[in-house]
Amino acid sequence: MTTPQWVKDLKPAAPQGSELLEQERSKSKINVDTLSAFLHSREGLARKRRVLKILENDKVFNKEQNYFAGRIDRFETALARAKKLRQLVIRHGWDNDDRMVANELISEPGPYGLHESMFLITLRDQGSPEQHERFLKQAEKYKYIGCYAQTELGHGSNVRGLETTATWNTEDQTFTIDSPTLTASKWWIGSLGRTANHAVVMAQLIINGKSHGPHPFVVQIRDMSTHEPLKDIHIGDIGPKFGYNTMDNGFLLFNKVKVPHISMLARHSRVDPKTNKYVKPSSPSLVFGTLTWVRSTIVMQAGGVLARGVTIATRYCAFQDRDAPSDAGGENQVLNYTTVQIRLLPLLATTFALHFTGKAMMALYGASQKKMSQDVGKVGGPERGAGPEETHSGSDLLADLHATSCGLKSLASYTAVEGLEVCRRACGGHGYSSFSGIGSWYADYLPTATWEGDNYMLTQQVARYLLKSARSVLKGNEPSNDTTAILANFLARQDQGAAFDVLGNDADIVAAYAWRSAFLTFEALKHRDEQKKAWNDLLVDFYRLSRAHSQYMVVKNFYETLQSPPSDLDPETLGVLHKLFRLYALHTLESEASEFYTSSAVTVRQIQLARTSAVMKLLQDIRPHAVRLVDSWDFPDWQLDSSLGRYDGKVYEDMFHRASELNPLNRITVDPYPDSPTLFKKNEAGALKPKL
Amino acid sequence: MTTPQWVKDLKPAAPQGSELLEQERSKSKINVDTLSAFLHSREGLARKRRVLKILENDKVFNKEQNYFAGRIDRFETALARAKKLRQLVIRHGWDNDDRMVANELISEPGPYGLHESMFLITLRDQGSPEQHERFLKQAEKYKYIGCYAQTELGHGSNVRGLETTATWNTEDQTFTIDSPTLTASKWWIGSLGRTANHAVVMAQLIINGKSHGPHPFVVQIRDMSTHEPLKDIHIGDIGPKFGYNTMDNGFLLFNKVKVPHISMLARHSRVDPKTNKYVKPSSPSLVFGTLTWVRSTIVMQAGGVLARGVTIATRYCAFQDRDAPSDAGGENQVLNYTTVQIRLLPLLATTFALHFTGKAMMALYGASQKKMSQDVGKVGGPERGAGPEETHSGSDLLADLHATSCGLKSLASYTAVEGLEVCRRACGGHGYSSFSGIGSWYADYLPTATWEGDNYMLTQQVARYLLKSARSVLKGNEPSNDTTAILANFLARQDQGAAFDVLGNDADIVAAYAWRSAFLTFEALKHRDEQKKAWNDLLVDFYRLSRAHSQYMVVKNFYETLQSPPSDLDPETLGVLHKLFRLYALHTLESEASEFYTSSAVTVRQIQLARTSAVMKLLQDIRPHAVRLVDSWDFPDWQLDSSLGRYDGKVYEDMFHRASELNPLNRITVDPYPDSPTLFKKNEAGALKPKL
Repeated sequence: MTTPQWVKDLKPAAPQGSELLEQERSKSKINVDTLSAFLHSREGLARKRRVLKILENDKVFNKEQNYFAGRIDRFETALARAKKLRQLVIRHGWDNDDRMVANELISEPGPYGLHESMFLITLRDQGSPEQHERFLKQAEKYKYIGCYAQTELGHGSNVRGLETTATWNTEDQTFTIDSPTLTASKWWIGSLGRTANHAVVMAQLIINGKSHGPHPFVVQIRDMSTHEPLKDIHIGDIGPKFGYNTMDNGFLLFNKVKVPHISMLARHSRVDPKTNKYVKPSSPSLVFGTLTWVRSTIVMQAGGVLARGVTIATRYCAFQDRDAPSDAGGENQVLNYTTVQIRLLPLLATTFALHFTGKAMMALYGASQKKMSQDVGKVGGPERGAGPEETHSGSDLLADLHATSCGLKSLASYTAVEGLEVCRRACGGHGYSSFSGIGSWYADYLPTATWEGDNYMLTQQVARYLLKSARSVLKGNEPSNDTTAILANFLARQDQGAAFDVLGNDADIVAAYAWRSAFLTFEALKHRDEQKKAWNDLLVDFYRLSRAHSQYMVVKNFYETLQSPPSDLDPETLGVLHKLFRLYALHTLESEASEFYTSSAVTVRQIQLARTSAVMKLLQDIRPHAVRLVDSWDFPDWQLDSSLGRYDGKVYEDMFHRASELNPLNRITVDPYPDSPTLFKKNEAGALKPKL
Repeated sequence: MTTPQWVKDLKPAAPQGSELLEQERSKSKINVDTLSAFLHSREGLARKRRVLKILENDKVFNKEQNYFAGRIDRFETALARAKKLRQLVIRHGWDNDDRMVANELISEPGPYGLHESMFLITLRDQGSPEQHERFLKQAEKYKYIGCYAQTELGHGSNVRGLETTATWNTEDQTFTIDSPTLTASKWWIGSLGRTANHAVVMAQLIINGKSHGPHPFVVQIRDMSTHEPLKDIHIGDIGPKFGYNTMDNGFLLFNKVKVPHISMLARHSRVDPKTNKYVKPSSPSLVFGTLTWVRSTIVMQAGGVLARGVTIATRYCAFQDRDAPSDAGGENQVLNYTTVQIRLLPLLATTFALHFTGKAMMALYGASQKKMSQDVGKVGGPERGAGPEETHSGSDLLADLHATSCGLKSLASYTAVEGLEVCRRACGGHGYSSFSGIGSWYADYLPTATWEGDNYMLTQQVARYLLKSARSVLKGNEPSNDTTAILANFLARQDQGAAFDVLGNDADIVAAYAWRSAFLTFEALKHRDEQKKAWNDLLVDFYRLSRAHSQYMVVKNFYETLQSPPSDLDPETLGVLHKLFRLYALHTLESEASEFYTSSAVTVRQIQLARTSAVMKLLQDIRPHAVRLVDSWDFPDWQLDSSLGRYDGKVYEDMFHRASELNPLNRITVDPYPDSPTLFKKNEAGALKPKL
């Protein structure tokens, strides 16, 4: 649609968004540059700039039609982008970090996603040298494009329940891959629907009528030249989803398809073709830690995921409320309303809390891997969702990390999901427009709350670990890690009671969180061991316990990060970070008030004071720094793709441009009358539409 | 895509969904038929069946491609449906209730939506007899198809801030409609983007340089034969949204467009063309109650909106958890997990709570209108969003209803929004598929939390009213309605303290909610009147106060509804409804624990018992009735359009059918290799796509 000149001449009414954001930035002395470097490192920032420059100059990555395009167009465009990205990797010699940064900037799941993660990783880690030669080399050259086919229509998290079978045929030394039921259909498999020509298929290995549990098989599924499914294989895309629609999640069924002996990935276990016997994996502990790593990265990313929404909402809420009563005296920026502050500023604090916690987790993971490899020999890279995971190591550090990663994955992804919706709604009516940039981001992120362990299911693992730790402490064992230390401390002090000065002392805040977590642990233990309650009857308590313990971890990590800040961080910025710590901790404390007072960690009076005075004061103190704080997250406009979150504040101009000039719906003219003989006068192509 | 025969022959692994749901239904004696009639009335149920039969046999209403279609197709189909529905109304002589039921069954916002509500209503209520003749007649015949253009790009809820002007021209007795800035552009206007040829435009009336505030003008905006925008008018669709994409929300700008004197709707105020003077509205109280009515309907609908999600999730969660450890002994239906029960069953209780509350509100509204019309003469019908609303009536009943409708609209729509997401997630991975039917329903419902009063803004009105009531009670005035009665009761008893037996006595639960609401009211009053805190500093307290008071209203209405149940309701069913009441009330109580104990309405011990014992026991008691309870909401499968929520439990078959046979993405074959010369081998039409 052409925008007439008289419309192009119009300006938004004063004050302009650009002026408002300029004012905001002039009111705070936060050093955005230093804080950005603290969050992302100088090297990370430089990498982002370098990659961004290449992407934004390539028209295949042009985002203008992203919000308008339908499913098929979005998928086709995403595939074109994936191909181009692969070409850029080769042309510019990008390393893995460069590619990850590019994906973050593009900000949509791509059809090569599972090829480049699970398919390659599984071939690498679970393939024998012969299989590396046969499969991995082709996959690394993108001749074989693969996916990781585990989940089935009837089965999600537990691989032991999978129905797909791989039966060893003694007579010709092959496997028959089969889907005996409809629920055995592979389902949700990323990159499978339209893209992959190979799959790693998790199937129950059956030898001589005996099942040996799920094992990975490399299976060709499409013809290498026509790309049509092979005979007796039924494949397709599973259809549209709430988000993630640039990805072709697929289904896959086998009608007794024979594959050769080499198809079964044989690094850990295999079938001996001479004896027709199953050879067990030599060291089950090798697969330890894979999901722990994945969960740690989810915690790490959750801060940044949420920060996108907070950036958009904070910048937009720095706008004036043009609907405010005129007696507001010019001071009517939306961000000045306490009902807006109470929603956005604790979330702003949360972005930092999660980021620092994720960083600490990754560091801990690195340390534990080092220790592990000393303990049990070389450990493979992370295997996303690859096989059952149990705690085999004797190391308390590792068990602690495993439990922590479960609880924090649940808390962090839940917090990011909920927070993004809060940000979207804080933008008022315009938050509902796709141009806000929050809705699609939220929708694409949502599955994180389900995959790599459902957020509810995971909390049982945390509780199980805490109960075990509590039993150990009750037996009088010496504390061997932080968890047993806080449990022992609680036991030692519980008769004296707690008197934490949460309003006056930051270390006491951390102690109060530890106290509450320990209290809930011993309560749960009492229900379980003394009152002999059924496990299922305690799931709700366990969920709360996991949440409490994870919040303790976040508060503790945030606190500790600020104890040793980088030397170039100025006192003003560090001071604001301290306030963000207190806001996160006290706001969470008062939101979860009843657990805190029930445990006697704090008094009812302290909670009331936290609510009515401490938190409100912190909101007021942090308010002037809000825009600079989100600036320090350093999201380029190109990445955010948001009218409301633009760095320059040209919100209305951008919304209008997209609606008036980019919107393809405005290219059709309809016949609106109910009794018209044809339904539509013309569509995009100028053709008449048939009556439905 | 063709599904091969060997796939068609596959069945889901046992047990079949149909068997599981049959078992569920056999385990409860709830009388679904009687309970449905209690919820919807026999007449309402018969109406639904009659309308459904017609719709589901008409191919324009076929829903098969709804989840797959892109924006343009969805809009065009929705328009075709709107036209057809209009034809059906005429052919079958449907009344307004029939049409509303049809819209509920179709379940998508349609392009005639604003024509059939705000446009017609505004013409009718605000037009003079001459204008009825000139505009309304044409509109009722769908010759004029209209919209209601109030909101602007820079202005939402407050009409006083609108920038569009209508300047009276003395010389030729016309008005000039103008958009002086970009932010003056009308925005979000339903049915405007592509459909309407007329608009009611709210614009600042200016006579002789003096502004008289916003007034409604009827303006032709598109040519009656070409349907192109008229000269100096720029119109378009505002682009895609998080939901509501079957509706063409539009923008509209005027470049000094002249309209005749008759354009200004003149029933209440007008410009006298002889004297060029503004003639004030004779009775401002006429517009009272319009938004109150709209808000009451939102409360009324919220129960049913949520019930769709609860129906889908409850039926699907009656399935077995195929991932459960095998030692679960067959008792592994997802709905047996307490972590699932604690999410779904309180929401199931909430659907009834909101429904009964909405019914009570509508009855109260009817009574108040009757009283009003006795007080001030004839009152017009509801005017959706039409103009400012103030409390002009001296009747305490009416003021109470106004405040209640604000608070309940906020609580009910928030609860439905949040609850739908909980239901979607309770469905696990498959909840993310569009075929769950929850995602799109949630996305379409979301704006309800913003329109007709932002859910946060509204709570100020509740607080203002409660403070006023408290001041009146403190002065010693006799209680004149329920609100002043509970405030007076609190004052009289506060020194004795409360001792509500919330665990043993249902009336005491209601009293505890009243107590907490009164306590928070006097706390807020102290902050405001004694401590002289600024209004803005109290917004968070006000939000909490409004929420508390609204929860009291819901609990009270649910309780009272069950005190006089319909005579044909059997004791078993009534007994379960009582349990649902207790579940809603006690679960909410323990979720909001800190306000209850701070107010001394209950003790810490009572809250602990509510949490760990009463609520858990209620979950257990209600569990066997869950499926029959959702059945009683009586959603036809055609309406739900959900694989997971099917009445017959054929979940896997339906998901597979949609993915394998209906999914258009499966009609394209791509070239997946990164260095291929062409990007795609063929698309739907068999054509090569150009390189992006």
